[in-house]
Formats: sequence, structure tokens, C-alpha cells
Amino acid sequence: MPMNDLFLRAARLEPTERTPIWMMRQAGRYMAEYRAIREKHGFLEMCRTPELAVEVTLQPVDLIGVDAAILFSDILVVFDGMGLDLEFAKGEGPVIHNPVRTVADVERLTVSDPLEHTGYVMEAIRILRRELENKVPLIGFAGAPFTLASYAIEGHGTRDYEKCKALMWTEPAAWDLLMTKFADTVIAYLCAQIDAGAQAVQLFDSWVGYVAPRDYERFVLPHSKRVLAEVKAHGDKVVEGGVPVIHFANGATSMIDLVQQAGGDIVGVDWRLDMRKAVELIDPRFGIQGNIDPVALFGPDDEIERQVIEILEAVGTRPGHIFNLGHGIHKTTDPEKARTLVRLVHEHSSRIRAEA
Amino acid sequence: MPMNDLFLRAARLEPTERTPIWMMRQAGRYMAEYRAIREKHGFLEMCRTPELAVEVTLQPVDLIGVDAAILFSDILVVFDGMGLDLEFAKGEGPVIHNPVRTVADVERLTVSDPLEHTGYVMEAIRILRRELENKVPLIGFAGAPFTLASYAIEGHGTRDYEKCKALMWTEPAAWDLLMTKFADTVIAYLCAQIDAGAQAVQLFDSWVGYVAPRDYERFVLPHSKRVLAEVKAHGDKVVEGGVPVIHFANGATSMIDLVQQAGGDIVGVDWRLDMRKAVELIDPRFGIQGNIDPVALFGPDDEIERQVIEILEAVGTRPGHIFNLGHGIHKTTDPEKARTLVRLVHEHSSRIRAEA
Repeated sequence: MPMNDLFLRAARLEPTERTPIWMMRQAGRYMAEYRAIREKHGFLEMCRTPELAVEVTLQPVDLIGVDAAILFSDILVVFDGMGLDLEFAKGEGPVIHNPVRTVADVERLTVSDPLEHTGYVMEAIRILRRELENKVPLIGFAGAPFTLASYAIEGHGTRDYEKCKALMWTEPAAWDLLMTKFADTVIAYLCAQIDAGAQAVQLFDSWVGYVAPRDYERFVLPHSKRVLAEVKAHGDKVVEGGVPVIHFANGATSMIDLVQQAGGDIVGVDWRLDMRKAVELIDPRFGIQGNIDPVALFGPDDEIERQVIEILEAVGTRPGHIFNLGHGIHKTTDPEKARTLVRLVHEHSSRIRAEA
Repeated sequence: MPMNDLFLRAARLEPTERTPIWMMRQAGRYMAEYRAIREKHGFLEMCRTPELAVEVTLQPVDLIGVDAAILFSDILVVFDGMGLDLEFAKGEGPVIHNPVRTVADVERLTVSDPLEHTGYVMEAIRILRRELENKVPLIGFAGAPFTLASYAIEGHGTRDYEKCKALMWTEPAAWDLLMTKFADTVIAYLCAQIDAGAQAVQLFDSWVGYVAPRDYERFVLPHSKRVLAEVKAHGDKVVEGGVPVIHFANGATSMIDLVQQAGGDIVGVDWRLDMRKAVELIDPRFGIQGNIDPVALFGPDDEIERQVIEILEAVGTRPGHIFNLGHGIHKTTDPEKARTLVRLVHEHSSRIRAEA
């Protein structure tokens, strides 16, 4: 067990003396130390070079004081082994040069082999476990099948999902095959991360908030459910006490009832859902991760403090709370504000526990 | 009363023989007839020239077969009278050259006079009422105070709202003054639209879905509530039977309990909330507008039909349903699909009524 095992205990719904906190995208552009490395290296190069991925993963642990490290990587690196030609074009985000548009395109995709195609991720995890010396636990992650499929089909980031949904509705068998290939890839990828030493994993369904609940239920949920169940079973098999699995479906709080049906141990919640309602709507067998507005870090300290207290008081004595932003930290955030958030969560959660 | 008064009767929660439908952005780029005019004129020029606004407003009435016309305009035209220098830069959307950043900026803003500054909108409404010859009712609209404030502060469209929320939290008094000025402007603007002949009005809070519920309640709701109440009171005073007021808070279905506290007659719902849940969560004193996924129009006809039936059956015999997309129609939509949607809503809602 790591010396600071707050995150792992909370993730297992065990009592903790204070609430653990980490931040989505905590290893990222808001830190000068990250930008100094990014200036010299391409984004995918950083993902694919274990030493660079390790270096930026470690930066926020000491500098921001978070209770968990999360591997620096990108959800799209699994495309390498699937026959999808990925590039991060300067200033444009990810571009897939041979997007999936037809049934034949779906059929030609292969399931990625995590050791052969993304071995650099496993190497980064192994180095990180050594370098972290159990100071805090290490979280691995992957994109969820829907989010991966949406990039593969659209060929780039979008807010429309016209091609993606059209394929889903027009060719449901091809859609299911595509989602099955992504699910198989993600299962193997996350299991390999666990084997390499990841002490928890998060499944990011970053764009599923654009899907209507009826479509989520039919076209997405079964695949996410299989991923979460198989990864959890693998963790139970290879690690004493299991490996906590976090499921974050961004923008999907209007269908949080369906999202939690997908399983996992911890349900991630964005800032659109009041935490009092999240506590009501999410089954007590799940932990809850979230959910301060990432933009709160652009407010004054007393405002951050008010919001921290509201969220902590809404959770109350319910076990399994992991504090996080409701989405990734914005790139223009002042790192001092991130440190302030960590301090406030620690202070007030300790106080609330002491008073309870 | 117009010959096709389905929309108005539904908006007043009266029984109708079938469900009325219109589409957000129904006068828009997906229609070749619109593009033909847009090619020759700037976007703001179209908003400010009554004859052009009238022409594109009328296009979908006959060509798509909707049960209501909605004035072609833009929510930002009220900036003209407020001292905000608005431009629609080619391919970039709206830009405000002198954004609101300080308390002094808030203080210098003036409340727009609808007759002096946006008289062209009232003129378009008067012409439209003549040209429509009561074929279908005419809907007017305005942006809600939050959405207007967010453009004024950020200076352009955004997904971040860092400056907007920072002002809200750091200078709450200036924020309230700003929201009050926008609310006053919108109240006068919508009342003038009613005086000019708008038979219903919609308040668009297009970007409020990025606001956390706690901030909505404190910083947004009181202002939207005042707008909706004062506009409704004006409609009650000047039109026999009143003027229906629709409130659409896009992306805000996780806090639909708060949104409906703002009032109005009809609550607009985006496609992220299952209509069965909307019917449960929205007080029966409100009508409901929505909520098919706009991307459904990129699916095959039998898929559109399934989704239409699901929504109509979810609403069942509850009065006050106005069918609409869950957000604006996408610009690459095939107009034939829009016609199909209208036909399917008419067919199935007639059948369901007949079977009930």
C-alpha cells in the first residue's frame, strides 16, 4: 500500500480521515513545468516516450499536492494498433486520416495488442511505480468505446456527431462490431495497465453527453458495461483487494441512472449536477468522484472555499468520495489556485470528519 | 386567431387534434432558399433589413410545413443599443470589439430602446403578420440575460466562460447590475415584439448549461424569472388570452427543477433528457417543448419515425406538448428530412389522439 493511500481507501468505500483529491488533466498545459517539456516535444511523442510521460505525470504530485498521480497519455494512443492513422495537427487537435465510414472500414479494424502497440504506456507505468515509491497511488486510464468510436468515425473532434450517429442508426450491426472492437481493445489495454502496476483505472467517456438516453441505453451502455466488468474482474484476480474502476461519462448527468448501470466502483460526476442530487441519484454501492466547476479556479479563494464546503457538506458522511474537478483543468488556470483547491479540500474535509 | 392555431392552443394547454411542431433555426443554412439570400447579404444585414428577415422567416412555413413561424434574427442584435460593438466576422461567429471586463464597463452599458435601436425587428414582425395572413402563428424571441452577458463579457462564443464566471464571483454587485441591464433590455425588447404582433415569444438561454446549479440559482434564475414574469404580464395586458412564453435553457436538463422555477408557460427541453423523465420532472402547469435529437435527421426515415413515436408516447395525453428539435437544426441537414419529421409528428400524433 502507498504511504498516502487515502485515494485507494476512499475508492474502496473505506473510511478516510480526509477526502482525497486529484484533478483531471492535472499533468497539463497550466503548469510551466509541463510547457517547458511540451515546447521541445510533440504531443504524441510525449505520450510515446516513457521518460517524458513519467516526468510530466510526476510534476503535479509534488507541485500541486494531489493524492493520486494519473498517467500522462492520450485516450487515442490505442488507435496505433487498430489501423487508424492518428496525427495531432498543430493547433487542431487529433486528426484521423483514414476515418471509419463504411461497414468495410469497420471490418478492417484490428483489436490493438497493448504490449505490442502501446508497450510504451506499460513501460511508463512500471517506471512511475518505481519513482513514486508508493508516495501516492497511480491511476491508469482509457477512453470508453463510444468516445473512441466517435473520433474514429468523425475523423476529428466535433460537437455534431452526425456521421457517428448516422452509422449507429443505419448500420447497427456494424456499429456493434465497431464498439466490440473498441471494447476488446480497451479491456486488453486497461488489464495490461493493471498488470504493469496501475493501482486504479478510469474509463473516460468524454463525449457521450451528446448522445440521447435512448441511444445510450441501446448503443453504448452494453459495451461500457462489458469493459467495466471485465476490467474489474481482472483487477480482482491479480490484485489483493481488487483495483478500483472509475467511470466518468462527461455531460451525461441527465442520464446518471443509466450511466451507473454500466457498473464500475466509482461514478464520476461533472459540475452540471448538484452534488446533493448526485448523492440521492447514485446508488450507495458506488463511490462518487467530483465535481467542482473547473472554472471555480478562476474565482477568488473565498469563492473556491464556499464551493468546496458545499460539495463536502452535500456528500456528508457517505463513504467513497473522491474530490475532483467536474471536467479537466483549464489550460490557463493559475497553478496556485490548484494548490489552494487541494489545501481547502484537505482542511475542510478533515474538519467535517472531526466534527461528525 | 390564425387558421392553423395548433401551436397557440397547445401553448395554452388546450386540447389539440395533433401535436404542433416547429424547429429551432428552421429559417437557416440547411435550406438552399436561405443560402441563396445569404450569399448576397451579410448576416447582420439580413437581421437588420426587414424585407430580408421576412423572406427567410417565411421560407420554412410552406417548404417544410411547420406549425409556427419564428422570426429570423439573432439574439445579439440588442447589443446595438447598449454600446456593445458587435460584428459577425466571416467564419468566426460573433465578435464584440469592446467586451465588458470591469465594473466601469458594466456601468457604461445602456439599456437598449427597442423602437429606437431594433425597430427593424418590429417592422419585420409587422410585415410578417400581414404576409402570414394568419396561416400559422409568429414566434418572437430574445436571448436570456445570462447568454447575452456571457457574449458581452467573453467577447465571442466560448466553451469556457472563465471571464464571465470570474466577474460573477468576484464582482457580484456589478454582475447583478449587468444582468439587470440585460433583463431590462430583453423585457422591453420582447414587449415591443408582442406590441408589433408576435403571438408567442421564446427566451433562449443557449449557454446556461455551462453554469453549475448553485450559480444558476444565485446569479441567473432571479433575472430570467423577472424577464419571464414581466413579459407574460405584458402579454396578458395587451392580448386577449395572453401571449405564450417559452423558456429554453439549453444543456440545463440536470437542473430542470431550477429552470422551471424561472416561470413562463412552456419549458423547452434538449435531447439529453428522456421525455419520460421530462414529463415526470416538469410541473403539469407547464407545457413542454422538444426534444428529438437534431442529429436524428441524419438517420434513416424509420429511425426518425421510431424516435418521434417514443417522444409522443412518452408525452401521452398530457396537454401542452409542442414538438421541436432538442436544439437548432444542423446546417447540413437535408430539408427533405425536416419535411419527413413534420409529416411523422403530424401522422403519429393524430393517430395517438384518435386511439386514446
